[in-house]
Amino acid sequence: MSVDYEIFELGDFRLQGGATLRGCRLAYKTFGTLNAAKDNAIVYPTWYSAQHDANEWLIGAGRALDPARQFIVIPNMLGNGLSSSPSNMPEPYDGPRFPQVTAYDNVSAQHRLVAERFGIERIRLVTGWSMGALQTFHWGAMYPDMVERIAPFCGSAKCSRHNFVFLEGVKAALTADAAFADGWYTAKPAKGLRAMARVYAGWGFSQAFYREELDLKALGYSSLEDFLIAFWEGFFLPKDANNLLAMLWTWQHGDISANEIYHGDFRKTLGSIKAKAYVMPGQTDLYFPPEDSQFEVAHMPNATYVPVPSIWGHFAGGPGTNPKDVEFIDGKLKELLKS
Amino acid sequence: MSVDYEIFELGDFRLQGGATLRGCRLAYKTFGTLNAAKDNAIVYPTWYSAQHDANEWLIGAGRALDPARQFIVIPNMLGNGLSSSPSNMPEPYDGPRFPQVTAYDNVSAQHRLVAERFGIERIRLVTGWSMGALQTFHWGAMYPDMVERIAPFCGSAKCSRHNFVFLEGVKAALTADAAFADGWYTAKPAKGLRAMARVYAGWGFSQAFYREELDLKALGYSSLEDFLIAFWEGFFLPKDANNLLAMLWTWQHGDISANEIYHGDFRKTLGSIKAKAYVMPGQTDLYFPPEDSQFEVAHMPNATYVPVPSIWGHFAGGPGTNPKDVEFIDGKLKELLKS
Repeated sequence: MSVDYEIFELGDFRLQGGATLRGCRLAYKTFGTLNAAKDNAIVYPTWYSAQHDANEWLIGAGRALDPARQFIVIPNMLGNGLSSSPSNMPEPYDGPRFPQVTAYDNVSAQHRLVAERFGIERIRLVTGWSMGALQTFHWGAMYPDMVERIAPFCGSAKCSRHNFVFLEGVKAALTADAAFADGWYTAKPAKGLRAMARVYAGWGFSQAFYREELDLKALGYSSLEDFLIAFWEGFFLPKDANNLLAMLWTWQHGDISANEIYHGDFRKTLGSIKAKAYVMPGQTDLYFPPEDSQFEVAHMPNATYVPVPSIWGHFAGGPGTNPKDVEFIDGKLKELLKS
Repeated sequence: MSVDYEIFELGDFRLQGGATLRGCRLAYKTFGTLNAAKDNAIVYPTWYSAQHDANEWLIGAGRALDPARQFIVIPNMLGNGLSSSPSNMPEPYDGPRFPQVTAYDNVSAQHRLVAERFGIERIRLVTGWSMGALQTFHWGAMYPDMVERIAPFCGSAKCSRHNFVFLEGVKAALTADAAFADGWYTAKPAKGLRAMARVYAGWGFSQAFYREELDLKALGYSSLEDFLIAFWEGFFLPKDANNLLAMLWTWQHGDISANEIYHGDFRKTLGSIKAKAYVMPGQTDLYFPPEDSQFEVAHMPNATYVPVPSIWGHFAGGPGTNPKDVEFIDGKLKELLKS
């Protein structure tokens, strides 16, 4: 079977939490060519539940992320089923025994990929949606002298308490299914995955999105129930439950200051991000509300608050779901790259 | 066992959906005395999952709802465990066989109570929180010549599509538990009830509520997890799952125009509400957003938009949870009653 990605072997990868992922693998895909000066690299981490292919909507000829000019690296998040994950890790760290992985761990691994495999010392831009934004903030905070620009969109530098609670609901719905069996399922816990999808549905798009019936009028579903089944249940059902829970833990514990560099001082960490930053929340995002982005920008030395004017909720930054939002984000990335 | 409520026998109560609840009972509690002119009646319906005692925070000496001056009737919603419900209905309409009951059915039953038992022909005020607001709107629309004032707070005249989706998540979480057994459970489906509670937790209070840590600082919980367990799981665990689902169906299908009077014409129905109305959304309510109230007010002939300035989300109208919001609502009710 041919695949469209490559593997970087991390060897025995020690995690913040104390576990070691032996034979840890980082899956990634690149676009374009690294130039001789090695100064055209863009890192573009993946989002919750997704793999690299779900990032490709933002890449293309004429786009800010143009393979003709940039060298774009999409590293797959640990737990996403391609990089080391509950679903592909050999015993004894398989399934629900997969250890807790932080965004810090992810970005440490990505840094090794970028530095060791490609010899890159400066990164032109790190950008990403949602949990990709979380990793983007980590890049800025962990490697302030390496990262020239960051553009986190529809995400945060630290999982807010409300966001944490939203995810508790998602997790509880998935794990309420007896078929989940504490993660030792032999068949897919479909009822739990469907329940999780329905919980997610109310959060993913805004009240206004549903009020304007954009599920029908813009996305073409035939009814609200069709949207819930075909879009939402269809989205989560193919995914591995333990993978989803591993990434959910990573999300809930995301915090750029939760490491030995910054010792939990969130404001200081924001202040240490030297990169020129466009922080782009979705204006109607229900779990990454703009107020949290405003707080971040206020404490970053070189950041601009750039809300995405959209009623698509979290999906303002979604995987190319709304063309108008894609244009907005792409335009802002071009602006940032020129500056 | 002595109880603090009374029962009105509805007899064979025919529902909009076609079923007949034989021996249907409406539980209610009254406060104060109906005066000789029978013009001091206030109707104050209950909210989702609650019984009359959870309405009493708004009643008291010196309050707008003062038993020394008003005759206050709290009718318990069908499905809430006191009025006819899955949990107390005899076979064959018991448990998951309990029929679908609409807000129209509820208010029809309440009207019979008010008219037949008390001989009331004019109602000074109908008010209620959340699903209580839904019933309040129904009162205004179904009996426009009887109801002088309405004050629905943190609720709507019609379940919005987004609100419907939010409830789909709640329902899916509860029913994902195998112990639920399609409603034929013999022991409480605790895992499902706990999951439902965690899903609800993110919706009940606003992002700002959690950001400001009001769960700890205002409500006194010892940690976020303590709030999720003690407040939220503790709230839903004592309740009957079929009752919760019966009321959830009522909520999802709430629509003042879905009846033979108005034939689904929502704007016309709003336009037919003659009562002087204060429509009071919570400014940060995540499932009854103020925009929906603004739409309602714009189409009502005698309504004022009165948002509750609060970061307590839906609980701005909650059962006395935030003293400042209680004062605001009470003050507005006094203003409305004087006008």
